[in-house]
Amino acid sequence: MEPPVLVLRPLTDYTPNGEKLMLIGKTIDQLQVGDAAEFTKTVSETDIYLFAGVTGDFNPAHINETYAQQTFFKGRIAHGMLLAGLISAILGTQLPGPGTIYIKQELNFKAPVRIGDTVTARAEIVGLLPEKNKVTMKTTCTNQNGILVLDGEAVISPPKAPKK
Amino acid sequence: MEPPVLVLRPLTDYTPNGEKLMLIGKTIDQLQVGDAAEFTKTVSETDIYLFAGVTGDFNPAHINETYAQQTFFKGRIAHGMLLAGLISAILGTQLPGPGTIYIKQELNFKAPVRIGDTVTARAEIVGLLPEKNKVTMKTTCTNQNGILVLDGEAVISPPKAPKK
Repeated sequence: MEPPVLVLRPLTDYTPNGEKLMLIGKTIDQLQVGDAAEFTKTVSETDIYLFAGVTGDFNPAHINETYAQQTFFKGRIAHGMLLAGLISAILGTQLPGPGTIYIKQELNFKAPVRIGDTVTARAEIVGLLPEKNKVTMKTTCTNQNGILVLDGEAVISPPKAPKK
Repeated sequence: MEPPVLVLRPLTDYTPNGEKLMLIGKTIDQLQVGDAAEFTKTVSETDIYLFAGVTGDFNPAHINETYAQQTFFKGRIAHGMLLAGLISAILGTQLPGPGTIYIKQELNFKAPVRIGDTVTARAEIVGLLPEKNKVTMKTTCTNQNGILVLDGEAVISPPKAPKK
């Protein structure tokens, strides 16, 4: 028996005529209201500390347990913008995927996320404007107990089909 | 001559009577419309790669130069949410500072940021609602050429003075 062939996802696809097609996500004619994608991640202490280092957000609520114990949340919490990054991950890699241009994002921070919480980000298409190549998506993050920790709305421009 | 004394910023302050006061940012009575703060950072390739690792946003526009060269932006660009993190850094560490609760953020992505660009995030108070302990801030990011790369508005709840 032959060993299985490892198929690597190519950077470019080819048409039957051998023309190169750049790897892109879904174009607006491939999208429908109700289409949704999710990404789930357990938020670690390392995530929070790297995020602080990258952004400069060393708010003690995120990186000082002694201080954070005295606050309303009684312990360190993740940066809200780290969770927003999980939404960005869906839009840029899954739905619509590569080639998407991020136009606008509204974020409402609803509840804290702690070290070890498992967060599911979700993006669902709620509006399509084909004549402007714009898509509106409802975006949420929920924790392992089903509590909504973040909601909001994104406006994006999905990738356009390569020119012939 | 005595060597200079290194003064470390304490986790807690003390009243003249020796009562402990938690380190907090500015309360609403210490804030005025027009108050502003800035934070400037040169965005490095490392920042973008760490941000991708933390958030899962491996959109090739951010981490694949060969792909990105073929796109509208002609090269890798930073994650928009990384820039939003610079705004979060101002709110949580400078204005109002520690103890601030992030309620809402609206983000409009206006122009790309490339590796090596120096971004200045700015937050300016545009509205105060003392009876609800809420503050509205205009939030922007501008690059080294003065081009607006991100704008939007934040709504936050500044820290409350410790109870007597």
